Amino acid sequence: MTLSKERLILVCNDDGYLATGLAALIETVAPYGKVVAVVPEKGESGKSHAITINLPIRLNLIKKDENVSLYACSGTPVDSIKLALNKVLDRKPDFVVSGINHGSNSSISVIYSGTMGAVIEACLNGIPAIGFSLLDYSKNPDFTASKHVVKRMLENVIQYGLPPMTCLNVNIPKIPIEQLKGIKIARQAKGVWKEEFDKRIDPHNQAYYWMTGDFQNFEPEAEDTDEWALKHNYASVVPIHCDFTAYYAFDKLSNWNYEL
Amino acid sequence: MTLSKERLILVCNDDGYLATGLAALIETVAPYGKVVAVVPEKGESGKSHAITINLPIRLNLIKKDENVSLYACSGTPVDSIKLALNKVLDRKPDFVVSGINHGSNSSISVIYSGTMGAVIEACLNGIPAIGFSLLDYSKNPDFTASKHVVKRMLENVIQYGLPPMTCLNVNIPKIPIEQLKGIKIARQAKGVWKEEFDKRIDPHNQAYYWMTGDFQNFEPEAEDTDEWALKHNYASVVPIHCDFTAYYAFDKLSNWNYEL
Repeated sequence: MTLSKERLILVCNDDGYLATGLAALIETVAPYGKVVAVVPEKGESGKSHAITINLPIRLNLIKKDENVSLYACSGTPVDSIKLALNKVLDRKPDFVVSGINHGSNSSISVIYSGTMGAVIEACLNGIPAIGFSLLDYSKNPDFTASKHVVKRMLENVIQYGLPPMTCLNVNIPKIPIEQLKGIKIARQAKGVWKEEFDKRIDPHNQAYYWMTGDFQNFEPEAEDTDEWALKHNYASVVPIHCDFTAYYAFDKLSNWNYEL
Repeated sequence: MTLSKERLILVCNDDGYLATGLAALIETVAPYGKVVAVVPEKGESGKSHAITINLPIRLNLIKKDENVSLYACSGTPVDSIKLALNKVLDRKPDFVVSGINHGSNSSISVIYSGTMGAVIEACLNGIPAIGFSLLDYSKNPDFTASKHVVKRMLENVIQYGLPPMTCLNVNIPKIPIEQLKGIKIARQAKGVWKEEFDKRIDPHNQAYYWMTGDFQNFEPEAEDTDEWALKHNYASVVPIHCDFTAYYAFDKLSNWNYEL
């Protein structure tokens, strides 16, 4: 792989600029080009594709050296990408990478994920983009296997490119590198998060709720899903598109009554 | 259409419990069943599928009469649906309707929309769900045409049902009812929001940005899109699915190098 300092790589995440997953990602992609990271200033997990419309957005330069610049944005991951493309970078980046997220973004979690929100926003702007998530919620996990996967996937995207309007959701199991069996292309497993709301009473005698949830996999036996791959010690790669249209429903809908 | 008070209809929105669009929606669906509205306590436009993980969530009963209850939730539209399903309702609702949004959610806006976040969350939970948006950002628009569309679409869903894991994104043009040509099934137009960031200096001499944007339609001539329908005085109905997998990319990805 020829390395080129001409390449411009925009980095984002949803765990904030202090996350060790961000440091691991920057360290891994820095040999491939000039890195500019524009990331939320605090944890923005679960922010999905949210944008900040009714509040002003702040942007602070945290550090800048020859090859790596790091900015913290007061908004969401998607705000960070938009601000980077419009105000920070002087040209369109060659790639966007997001993560390494502390926790899974497999199956339907892709829709809640701020990490993937940033990736999809880049994709909408025509930039090849990959999100990386490690199935470990701890603050200082072992990123060894993740770094190998990041390197391999970035090299693939550099060499082969991505189809138009398509990005990648990459998840890595929480296992030592020696146990990682490989990387598997997969589809998003069908499933849902089932929430519980933990009700408590504050010191002023008012009720409040903490949201917690458990993931329910509707098809644990389906070997072509990301959940299956991860449970069987593979990293999963799900190609993601940005068209929400359910084309399969057109026939059925065409028989409805549309009189006004 | 037989009316049944046994039907349970959950209502949500992203403009908050004081929005006139919410009142218009509740008024229109109330004849079809018992209505429980659980909506954000303030405007949550652009919140997409965001959930509140790191803050507690509050829930307040605003009003309750024989057929309509209204609750305000401190969280996002998706939080509101989750809280409604888990803590407010004693059984799964028969339908979820969201809106009527003050402003368009056509084309790629579906991904940023809190209105549609609520709809997709209901869909993930197996509940038939429809989002309604009027292309008028004013606080007190004319909802006459919208109400006709809401009524027709709800009756269709009651009569015909929706395919599994499929919901509807309905947009209504800003025109008097007499000019509304009909309701058109459409696909999500390809397009993107191009942002501008309006930079200002606060009284403490610190910079901040306001995000503004313009929608760019990549295919204004495509007659099968929601954008085309709306521009030609039709309400648009886009069926929406919840699988982000880009199946068309599998072949291409299978030729990549996955050695670790």
